[in-house]
Amino acid sequence: METIPSGVCAPIGFMAAGVCCGIKKGKAKRDLALILSDSPCKAAACYTKNLVKGAPILVTQEHLKKLAAHGAIVNSGNANTCNGPEGLAHAKAMARFAALRTGLRPEDFIVASTGVIGQRLPIETIEAGMDALVKDLSKDGAARAREAIMTTDTREKETAVEFILSGRTVRIGAMAKGSGMIHINMATMLSFITTDCSISGELLQEALSACVEKTFNCVSVDGDTSTNDMVCALANGRAGNQTIREKGPDYGAFLEALETVSEYLARAIAKDGEGATRLLECAVSGAADEASGRKLALSVISSSLVKAAFFGSDANWGRILCALGYSGVAFDPDKVDVAFRSAKGFIAVCSGGRPLPFDEAKAKDILSADEIGIEVKMAEGAATAKAWGCDLTYEYVKINGDYRS
Amino acid sequence: METIPSGVCAPIGFMAAGVCCGIKKGKAKRDLALILSDSPCKAAACYTKNLVKGAPILVTQEHLKKLAAHGAIVNSGNANTCNGPEGLAHAKAMARFAALRTGLRPEDFIVASTGVIGQRLPIETIEAGMDALVKDLSKDGAARAREAIMTTDTREKETAVEFILSGRTVRIGAMAKGSGMIHINMATMLSFITTDCSISGELLQEALSACVEKTFNCVSVDGDTSTNDMVCALANGRAGNQTIREKGPDYGAFLEALETVSEYLARAIAKDGEGATRLLECAVSGAADEASGRKLALSVISSSLVKAAFFGSDANWGRILCALGYSGVAFDPDKVDVAFRSAKGFIAVCSGGRPLPFDEAKAKDILSADEIGIEVKMAEGAATAKAWGCDLTYEYVKINGDYRS
Repeated sequence: METIPSGVCAPIGFMAAGVCCGIKKGKAKRDLALILSDSPCKAAACYTKNLVKGAPILVTQEHLKKLAAHGAIVNSGNANTCNGPEGLAHAKAMARFAALRTGLRPEDFIVASTGVIGQRLPIETIEAGMDALVKDLSKDGAARAREAIMTTDTREKETAVEFILSGRTVRIGAMAKGSGMIHINMATMLSFITTDCSISGELLQEALSACVEKTFNCVSVDGDTSTNDMVCALANGRAGNQTIREKGPDYGAFLEALETVSEYLARAIAKDGEGATRLLECAVSGAADEASGRKLALSVISSSLVKAAFFGSDANWGRILCALGYSGVAFDPDKVDVAFRSAKGFIAVCSGGRPLPFDEAKAKDILSADEIGIEVKMAEGAATAKAWGCDLTYEYVKINGDYRS
Repeated sequence: METIPSGVCAPIGFMAAGVCCGIKKGKAKRDLALILSDSPCKAAACYTKNLVKGAPILVTQEHLKKLAAHGAIVNSGNANTCNGPEGLAHAKAMARFAALRTGLRPEDFIVASTGVIGQRLPIETIEAGMDALVKDLSKDGAARAREAIMTTDTREKETAVEFILSGRTVRIGAMAKGSGMIHINMATMLSFITTDCSISGELLQEALSACVEKTFNCVSVDGDTSTNDMVCALANGRAGNQTIREKGPDYGAFLEALETVSEYLARAIAKDGEGATRLLECAVSGAADEASGRKLALSVISSSLVKAAFFGSDANWGRILCALGYSGVAFDPDKVDVAFRSAKGFIAVCSGGRPLPFDEAKAKDILSADEIGIEVKMAEGAATAKAWGCDLTYEYVKINGDYRS
């Protein structure tokens, strides 16, 4: 598997666009994006589990019932959520605008919005920007599209890989946005995955669901699960590989590549957590099973106290034990080891649930790196799991203290 | 019911003490406290639900099996948690020290510790401070005791009430500590309640459990449920009322007074949340039942995004809908009203799940008060519930970025 450039435009037949239509007031920032395939795609998606769902989610769920689509239209700056029937009409209008200008049907489009909740979507502004958007579509539009879906993100997030399936080169490209309001089960995270792999809609959905569970759903920035977000995948089959219709070796290879792309983006989102200065990766081993391992890892990564301690490069491992203890997973606290790892070294701080003597200066140095591994070893079984998060900083509070203005 | 002075020493027969024995290094701060009744007490307690429990919790659970005790010994500055068999021996030693100097048995004492996890408890320091502690015991010792149990608390928390039970005046006094690591199900919160009411141990426990569920367990500062904390009650019967042995009117009056005291402390703890500038009270009405109402209110009060918005006095009610949506409680999002209330006024911001036009300047003014009511009205039933929390501030991050040093 090789990493390649061009993000969502890397697979054959995909174009993208990103323009500034004026939703983000007073700022000349791109806020409207389009992804389009030159041929019909199998399509799959995973959605937020929040009971309060944005209008675009409802529309997309409807459109993807047939496990097929042709493209995606996305705006940032407004979540189009809690806007009642008008919000729903606006989400449908976005698909209609895209269809009108591409000769396709509204139901061929995935619709997504991200931004403030409970403010009317300026649909006229979007309509006025449509011509420029469609004109902007091109094979090198990935950079503009990934920029147009950002809200408080400080970094653009995209990746692409290629790999061989039975002699044919297949590509997967992806872009994501997500920075705050990010917690297990999607949160304010949008991710668009394109591939030229030929695969059935059913298996595309199955692969995506499996993959999301282990990657996007294992990221927590602030414990808030958003109303709007989703991960979707479009597969246009242009690579010409023999269509994947069963779970054989080809499916395995596709799943592996999809996981690589998803894990890359999940880490990038955690690293770009609002105000974050460090990426935290909690790796649990010796868990009873994968699900409980994930629950434990997520509990650590979600703890405000753990997150604040890492901001201060403070090896306060007691807070990690504490977070494991309230995770809801049963384990023997006297059989837990904790260690920290970064590019600057490795240090064990707790063994069998008790303190190990350690060099505080060395620990501080290791924890001053920008990516920190928290290694938790239990004695409950053989399962492993990972979760990603970030430190809690002054900046997070600042960003969220007055987001709307 | 009247509010009276003297906290835990308000009920007849209780004395308290608080001294500086030297656990909190480099700071001449009180860190060792004692509460003692002049006669045997019925005793009850509710404990942290964290799987990782501090050694003092284990010792107290053992001592209170008989639903009786005589006093409590408490230290701050060190949680005596994750210290293995030595930690357990130290917690037992604290009870033994108190017993030796009061002519009682070790099992007559509740033991509590709060502070850093995973550092050896300096038991020699505590032993050396015991003579001064016992000497300090007095009827006016409540202020010193409440000071000695504080960690990052910025305000002392105590209250007392008196009320009449069948012609006799009965008193309940209480003190608490708690500021960070506070979330539903106890968290780092210690509360000591004394009363001269005569009541059976079983009913004292039942009243305390019912009361904790509605008050202390409805406070969230940062989502972390601590390893160490508990609410305990000592009832020495010195008021001379007819012993409460069944759930009649006397039990009802006692429960009401206990709830008043507990709610006062729960609010005080939320208001003193680490770095907090505002108390948030979320009141849910129209819930299907009390438990789901509490879950909804707690989800709002626990959301980092909601908390950060209130720090900025930002009427970002969409985040409230969002937090309700991921609470795990089923409800109709199109039948939710949200309003804010403070000493500066009242403003409705959302009706039927949709935005109401409102005056942003007025909202900002209302939200600049130091106590904010978040009123959520649903259409699921007739139950109401409340939860308390605080805003998320720069200061919280600062306090927790380097707590151990």
